[in-house]
Amino acid sequence: MPKPLSVGIVGASGYTGLELCRLLALHPSVTITHLFSRQLAGKTVKDVFPHLHHLHSIVFEVFDAEKLPVLDILFLALPHGESQHVMSKLVGKPFKIIDLSADFRLTDPAQYKKYYGEDHAATSYISDVSYGIPELYRERIKEKQICANPGCYPTATILGLYPFAKAGLIKQPVIVDAKSGVSGAGKGLKESSLFCEVQESFSSYSTYFHRHVPEMEEHLNTRVLFSPHLVPMNRGMLATMYLPLQGLTLSDIELLYSIYSNEYFVHFLGEKPMYTRQVSGTNFCHITVKRCEDIDQLVIFSAIDNLGKGASGQAIQNMNLMCGFDESEGLKQLATFL
Amino acid sequence: MPKPLSVGIVGASGYTGLELCRLLALHPSVTITHLFSRQLAGKTVKDVFPHLHHLHSIVFEVFDAEKLPVLDILFLALPHGESQHVMSKLVGKPFKIIDLSADFRLTDPAQYKKYYGEDHAATSYISDVSYGIPELYRERIKEKQICANPGCYPTATILGLYPFAKAGLIKQPVIVDAKSGVSGAGKGLKESSLFCEVQESFSSYSTYFHRHVPEMEEHLNTRVLFSPHLVPMNRGMLATMYLPLQGLTLSDIELLYSIYSNEYFVHFLGEKPMYTRQVSGTNFCHITVKRCEDIDQLVIFSAIDNLGKGASGQAIQNMNLMCGFDESEGLKQLATFL
Amino acid sequence: MPKPLSVGIVGASGYTGLELCRLLALHPSVTITHLFSRQLAGKTVKDVFPHLHHLHSIVFEVFDAEKLPVLDILFLALPHGESQHVMSKLVGKPFKIIDLSADFRLTDPAQYKKYYGEDHAATSYISDVSYGIPELYRERIKEKQICANPGCYPTATILGLYPFAKAGLIKQPVIVDAKSGVSGAGKGLKESSLFCEVQESFSSYSTYFHRHVPEMEEHLNTRVLFSPHLVPMNRGMLATMYLPLQGLTLSDIELLYSIYSNEYFVHFLGEKPMYTRQVSGTNFCHITVKRCEDIDQLVIFSAIDNLGKGASGQAIQNMNLMCGFDESEGLKQLATFL
Amino acid sequence: MPKPLSVGIVGASGYTGLELCRLLALHPSVTITHLFSRQLAGKTVKDVFPHLHHLHSIVFEVFDAEKLPVLDILFLALPHGESQHVMSKLVGKPFKIIDLSADFRLTDPAQYKKYYGEDHAATSYISDVSYGIPELYRERIKEKQICANPGCYPTATILGLYPFAKAGLIKQPVIVDAKSGVSGAGKGLKESSLFCEVQESFSSYSTYFHRHVPEMEEHLNTRVLFSPHLVPMNRGMLATMYLPLQGLTLSDIELLYSIYSNEYFVHFLGEKPMYTRQVSGTNFCHITVKRCEDIDQLVIFSAIDNLGKGASGQAIQNMNLMCGFDESEGLKQLATFL
Repeated sequence: MPKPLSVGIVGASGYTGLELCRLLALHPSVTITHLFSRQLAGKTVKDVFPHLHHLHSIVFEVFDAEKLPVLDILFLALPHGESQHVMSKLVGKPFKIIDLSADFRLTDPAQYKKYYGEDHAATSYISDVSYGIPELYRERIKEKQICANPGCYPTATILGLYPFAKAGLIKQPVIVDAKSGVSGAGKGLKESSLFCEVQESFSSYSTYFHRHVPEMEEHLNTRVLFSPHLVPMNRGMLATMYLPLQGLTLSDIELLYSIYSNEYFVHFLGEKPMYTRQVSGTNFCHITVKRCEDIDQLVIFSAIDNLGKGASGQAIQNMNLMCGFDESEGLKQLATFL
Repeated sequence: MPKPLSVGIVGASGYTGLELCRLLALHPSVTITHLFSRQLAGKTVKDVFPHLHHLHSIVFEVFDAEKLPVLDILFLALPHGESQHVMSKLVGKPFKIIDLSADFRLTDPAQYKKYYGEDHAATSYISDVSYGIPELYRERIKEKQICANPGCYPTATILGLYPFAKAGLIKQPVIVDAKSGVSGAGKGLKESSLFCEVQESFSSYSTYFHRHVPEMEEHLNTRVLFSPHLVPMNRGMLATMYLPLQGLTLSDIELLYSIYSNEYFVHFLGEKPMYTRQVSGTNFCHITVKRCEDIDQLVIFSAIDNLGKGASGQAIQNMNLMCGFDESEGLKQLATFL
Repeated sequence: MPKPLSVGIVGASGYTGLELCRLLALHPSVTITHLFSRQLAGKTVKDVFPHLHHLHSIVFEVFDAEKLPVLDILFLALPHGESQHVMSKLVGKPFKIIDLSADFRLTDPAQYKKYYGEDHAATSYISDVSYGIPELYRERIKEKQICANPGCYPTATILGLYPFAKAGLIKQPVIVDAKSGVSGAGKGLKESSLFCEVQESFSSYSTYFHRHVPEMEEHLNTRVLFSPHLVPMNRGMLATMYLPLQGLTLSDIELLYSIYSNEYFVHFLGEKPMYTRQVSGTNFCHITVKRCEDIDQLVIFSAIDNLGKGASGQAIQNMNLMCGFDESEGLKQLATFL
Repeated sequence: MPKPLSVGIVGASGYTGLELCRLLALHPSVTITHLFSRQLAGKTVKDVFPHLHHLHSIVFEVFDAEKLPVLDILFLALPHGESQHVMSKLVGKPFKIIDLSADFRLTDPAQYKKYYGEDHAATSYISDVSYGIPELYRERIKEKQICANPGCYPTATILGLYPFAKAGLIKQPVIVDAKSGVSGAGKGLKESSLFCEVQESFSSYSTYFHRHVPEMEEHLNTRVLFSPHLVPMNRGMLATMYLPLQGLTLSDIELLYSIYSNEYFVHFLGEKPMYTRQVSGTNFCHITVKRCEDIDQLVIFSAIDNLGKGASGQAIQNMNLMCGFDESEGLKQLATFL
């Protein structure tokens, strides 16, 4: 067996960082060797996260792009706006980079400015990056040193609609009514993330103007009316999409989704109710539809775990591609379900 | 002070029955004197529901339409299909009836058959009944002996869209993406209502074909693409509605909603995020909107407590109208909020 | 009807402050006229808390003890350590003060220092204050200008054990295994209060050394082994208490609890399972027991809503006593139950 | 690589059965070949549990002890009272049996009758069975054809207290205040398991008389005052135990727990707060303590996932022992944590 590749995680104390630690524990071909966290620097994993049994002896470090340790793979699990400032130090180095932040997801800096409110600080590297939805861009991901891991909402939405976009069947703005568990908001201290603000409440937010919109629009090549909501649960994301369409049979739809037939992680389940728990804790995406026979609309449901296929799971899937591992390596866990 | 009117509740052990007990405890003009429950017959309230302090000495009875006690008001909090079989014994009796079931909500028996799967057994009484959304049908409710209390989804949807329907601005099917807490499913023993089936999951169900659709369509005079979802929480309902519309300013919209200006329970809050907890435990309906300027769609959010304005609260509001009480009597409680 | 008394709330944006706003909306003899909040100063209630319909026009102010408005009642809903610094400006003023913080709960400044880590800054006022458990200290509460509203854990524990303490039946340290909903931690931005840190987890904290211990020990006159836990829910508190005792019959125990027979808010329910939801949203305290016949231990369960009888409800009960209102005025709401 | 052993699961549609399916998906040395469920007989896994990707083609069967398929391992995930009636058909057959029910956990039929309310129907087989806590009875488990998988509460309690019992330090009844997630109640249709009965409530039940008591008492050789509670969450169990003890230093305690030093699944974490989410989804048991210096009590916290180490995880650990696999095979997943 070859020596496992060494992995470093920047922003390891956040929810996506912790999920990387959890999932990589079962990956046979990599070993986490460095965890970076400003907040926890100097502490050992055993003291702060005793459940990460395999990493107990690691001491959290401050990440310094000037003094990089020897690594094969670097995950950047940072808030947006940080990766772009260190990228010049990382490009061309002998390791793969999977950036879970939003910094290199958009190819158009004007869209970045519109949605993130500031100029992009490293536009020259944008073209060096792949957009990390393997089911759409597998070959490009393999070729690039850097992968921009997509947002959770775009992942669910794009996977659900892509067969229709590819077939040229999306001809007007699509309504995407999306619902997410709270972990998507991260571990930052915000009043809106407090338990008592969320429990026993369901809420809307950022209707029509949300940072994930330009990702969806770029990769689906359509306008999207995006309407996200917050669900009082940790994990899980459902995008309910309304596509004006008529005359498609279930067989027609199955044929469209057959582009995923050989995909390990994307499953079309026909006309069924959808439960986010069926993908909870996993890298799977489940898709169902409902045809509305006398209203010319197709309802499409796409469910993922926002921390799995929506973040850390997909990041590992991208890592697998970039490193030549089997694409599902370390990601075969099934849904916790309950 | 006049003698309080006496109230009986059939189906008192279910969630809407219990909510009636809770809310009527603060109503100054009525007293609960009879609680009917097949399941609990013979037991005292103190033993099974010690939190209903004001009703401790009441003994649950089996309801027998042949041997009615002396009552002023009778609430029927039964599953659908039961009220219609006892209605002939109740019509014309000297008490008011608020039926929380679905039996007399639809004026068209064919729709009843289509959605409930069986012939309606008491069609002759349908025209004797008012449909209990006071904000739309206040005068008719006052006149009739019997009120059909609306479904929770129709209440939220109709209140949100009615101003547009009234103004003739709904010209094609409306998409209603709705989300409900679990209490809407009632206390029946179904696997899908078990804690572990719901917690940490968000799900879709009954897309496009749901029993509440014909209520909405009848009172809004439009087709509705109805898409309900289940939220892991006890109480709360949000209807997110997508209305194809262009060119309306916020002032235009405020003007439309001004038909509710004198309503105690319906509040238009402008362009804001919506939180169902703001109406939790109450009879209020909150409405917000979001204009999508370059996509010709208006997003309308309507939130209620499915047990409050969606069931028992509205039932009491109807009772107040039918009995000549102040419409908000007993219903002034504010949201528990957390 | 006499003019309602005017109420001001300092710390109105926190959870206990908001609960005061909610409950006082139904109180016929008082009107909230001033809301103080550093964080929200200048904003109107309508904009930040649209569910507080009765207070929409109030503008939040910064509290300045030098420039007090005319008020009849002042609630201090502040973190500990703040009331003691303004008390000298408030003592002797023509209004009643109910302090929901910990500052004046302990009569022994040494205990304050031991548990709160700093010297008490206003020891001279400690003797001017009543400890606000009406069931124990009703007369003293009526006499004093200032009431120190007890902690939530002490309220549940003291009410459960007081009959035994009074009868001299507590002869060794009592084990109190307590469980609280998350709202007890307040609205402060702490990682441990984030939704994802709490949901689907049950945890222990502050075992044996918790700030509420000296309150319990002072009023029960015994040592307490206090062991609190956090429950993934908003509201509710259960104290499970283990009292070494033998030979008591259920009648003996009922006799002990008969000291509460005339209490509106404290109910002894015999040997039954206990559910915190039976008191959720209320000022009630429910107590049950279980005799362990061949192990000489009595298990006592005491349940409250930590925001109700454990904070704001009891504060209003104290206000009622201090102002000569009926003790249950404004507090007759029943449990939301679900 | 040798051919994987074939596994059958009786009661596969329940929560422990589903958890076996989930965990065994990652086990390299076994393959599930038969799933038995009366309720789902004839249906395929794909249709009812689409998340069990590895089992999609399996059709649920009715279990018939007269017509056993060829199997290497049989899990019985049934309610109590069923295994004992088929055991005579299974004993001596060429497969291993792990019985997750309570039927063969107690060695004393009188205790079975006292706690389960009926005579044991297969007492002659009791001595052929091992009690499946590997950390205590590893060798016996390896030797026996049949393993009685322990209850969840006994597992947490026994692991927490065993070092003290072994050292002869338990001299009087121990108080065990335990808290469990709802999945411990199984998937049966009981009102008390409904979402709305549990959410936002914390409750006590079966205080002092619970079916898991005799297991604890037998293996710890002490009386136990057992006091279980229900937590509104799916998974997780915490036993808080009060042991009258004096004079032990932390080193003394660490020495006692050093009997687990080489255990893969049991971890003593010293004096720390405990969070059940640190073991959620896993087969781990975390133990912490708190010394109460001037009250002669030691507080011991033992946390497991009631479906993991408390049921299906431990069942697989036992299977591994019985089949000669590495004890942690298939059980290395870390806590989902959130």
